[in-house]
Amino acid sequence: MDGGVTNSKPIQVWRHGNLNTSKDILANEHPLQLSIKVGGELKSLGMLLRTPGDDEDLALGWLLGEAIIQSITPVLAISCESGKVTVELDASQFKLSEIDSRRFTITSSCGLCGRETLEGLVIPSRLSLSNEQWLKPEVLTKLPTSLATSQEYFEVTGGLHASALFDEQANLIQVKEDVGRHNALDKLIGSRLKEEGLPAERQILMLSGRIGYELVQKAAFVGIPVVAGLGAPTSMAVDAARSAGLTLIGFLKQDKFNVYSGTWRLE
Amino acid sequence: MDGGVTNSKPIQVWRHGNLNTSKDILANEHPLQLSIKVGGELKSLGMLLRTPGDDEDLALGWLLGEAIIQSITPVLAISCESGKVTVELDASQFKLSEIDSRRFTITSSCGLCGRETLEGLVIPSRLSLSNEQWLKPEVLTKLPTSLATSQEYFEVTGGLHASALFDEQANLIQVKEDVGRHNALDKLIGSRLKEEGLPAERQILMLSGRIGYELVQKAAFVGIPVVAGLGAPTSMAVDAARSAGLTLIGFLKQDKFNVYSGTWRLE
Repeated sequence: MDGGVTNSKPIQVWRHGNLNTSKDILANEHPLQLSIKVGGELKSLGMLLRTPGDDEDLALGWLLGEAIIQSITPVLAISCESGKVTVELDASQFKLSEIDSRRFTITSSCGLCGRETLEGLVIPSRLSLSNEQWLKPEVLTKLPTSLATSQEYFEVTGGLHASALFDEQANLIQVKEDVGRHNALDKLIGSRLKEEGLPAERQILMLSGRIGYELVQKAAFVGIPVVAGLGAPTSMAVDAARSAGLTLIGFLKQDKFNVYSGTWRLE
Repeated sequence: MDGGVTNSKPIQVWRHGNLNTSKDILANEHPLQLSIKVGGELKSLGMLLRTPGDDEDLALGWLLGEAIIQSITPVLAISCESGKVTVELDASQFKLSEIDSRRFTITSSCGLCGRETLEGLVIPSRLSLSNEQWLKPEVLTKLPTSLATSQEYFEVTGGLHASALFDEQANLIQVKEDVGRHNALDKLIGSRLKEEGLPAERQILMLSGRIGYELVQKAAFVGIPVVAGLGAPTSMAVDAARSAGLTLIGFLKQDKFNVYSGTWRLE
C-alpha cells in the first residue's frame, strides 16, 4: 500500500529538558515504478520517489518532459495500481526498441536525465513564446499568499513542495504538491497536458521553493512563459531562462521581487 | 569555465512600484561529467548538476554511496578539469565491463539510482552502529546556530544546501555546501572517506533542509549514527532510520526538536 499524501507517526518531542510522546504528520514518500506498454509489450523505464497521488499526471508530465510524448494524442490508456503506473502508447507511433535505446534515469524527474555528455545539455526550443507585455507586478505580489492558501498539505507536514499555475489575473488554475520539487512540476504539467492547457500562454508558474535549472528547463520546454518562486534561482536557472526567453522572478514577496530575466513582459 | 561557488548577475528589483537595476549573488550550478578509468580505459558514468568546488570529494562520495567503492584503497588517482572529474580505479579489483552492467543514473546523487524495481529498494546494512547512549540534547540544540555560522555561502545566495558533521560535543568536523542537497552530503562523505573518517561513530550529521529518504539511506550506508535537520523528514526517511537503527531528529530548534527514531541514544 502506498498510503495517502500524509502519514501519521508516533514521535518523541524534546522541549526544555523533557521528552514527551507525541504524534507527527509527515509528508508521505513512496517509490513508483513507471512503465510503458506498446503493442502489448511492457517495458519498465525505472522508478521515482514521489508523494502518492496524481500518479497518472506525474507519469504524463514525466514522459512529456523527457520528450517521449509531444502531446496527449498517442496515449491510449493509463493504469495505476499500488506503486506502479503503466502508460500505453500507440504502437503505430512508437517502437519499444527505439525508446529502449535512450538512456533513462528516473529519480526526481531530472531535466538532465538521459544525457551523458555536456554537449547534450541544450534546452529544446519546442515552442516560441509571445513577446507581449502583459505581466502585472501587482499580480505577482499576490501569488505568495495565493500559493500558501492553495497548498493543502504543506502546513500540516512542513515537507511538501508545490507547483502552481496562475492566470494573468492571479487566479489559480492548478496546484500540485510532492516531496520532490520536480515531481510537483511534473504532476502539474501532466495535468495541464490532459486538459490540453499547454502551451500555457499568459500564465505564471509559481514554485514554493528555490528555482533550479531543471524546473526552468521544463517550463521552457512545455511553454510556460513566466516562472516565479519564493526562493533563490541558481545561476544555471537564470542562464536557461535568459536563453529560452522566459521571465524569471525570484525572492517573490508581497512588496518586493527580483527579476532575473524577461523584464520586458512586465507592465 | 565552471566558475566558483557563487556568481554575480545584473538583475532588476521591483519594490513599491519601481523597478531598479541591481546585482544579485547566485548559487552557481554547473554540470559535472563523472568518469572512471580502469587499466587505461575510460568510461563516463554520466553527469550531475552541482555547485563547482570539492569535485573530487563529490566523486568519491558518489562512488561510495553507489557502492562502487567500499573504501579509499582502490582509488589510484583523481583528476579534475573544468566540468569533468575522472577517478582511476585499481584494475586488479575492478572490471569496467562489470561496472557497465549496472544501470547508473546520475542526477542529484540519488539513493535509488540504478535500481529498476521496487524489490531493489533495500538499505544495505554495511555497518553495525553501536548501541551506546551518548547524545546530549544540549548538544543538538546548539547545532542550528553552529550550522548557520559554518555556512560560508548560504547567507549571500539564499540558495545553497549544507551538510555538516559534528562531534558529540558539537564541534564542527566538516561542512559542505551545494545547490543539491544530495551533492552536499556526497561532498561531505567523500571528504570523510579521504580522511578515513568513516564510519562516523558518535558523530551527528546536520542537514540544512528537509530530510528525504536518500539522505538517511546514505548516512546509514556510510555509518553515521545520527541525522538531524532543521526541517521535516519524509515518511520514508523515518522508516529508513528506524530500520537502520539511526537516530533521526527533525525540526531542530534552539529549544525544541522532534525525535523520530533511535531515542535510546539520547542521554
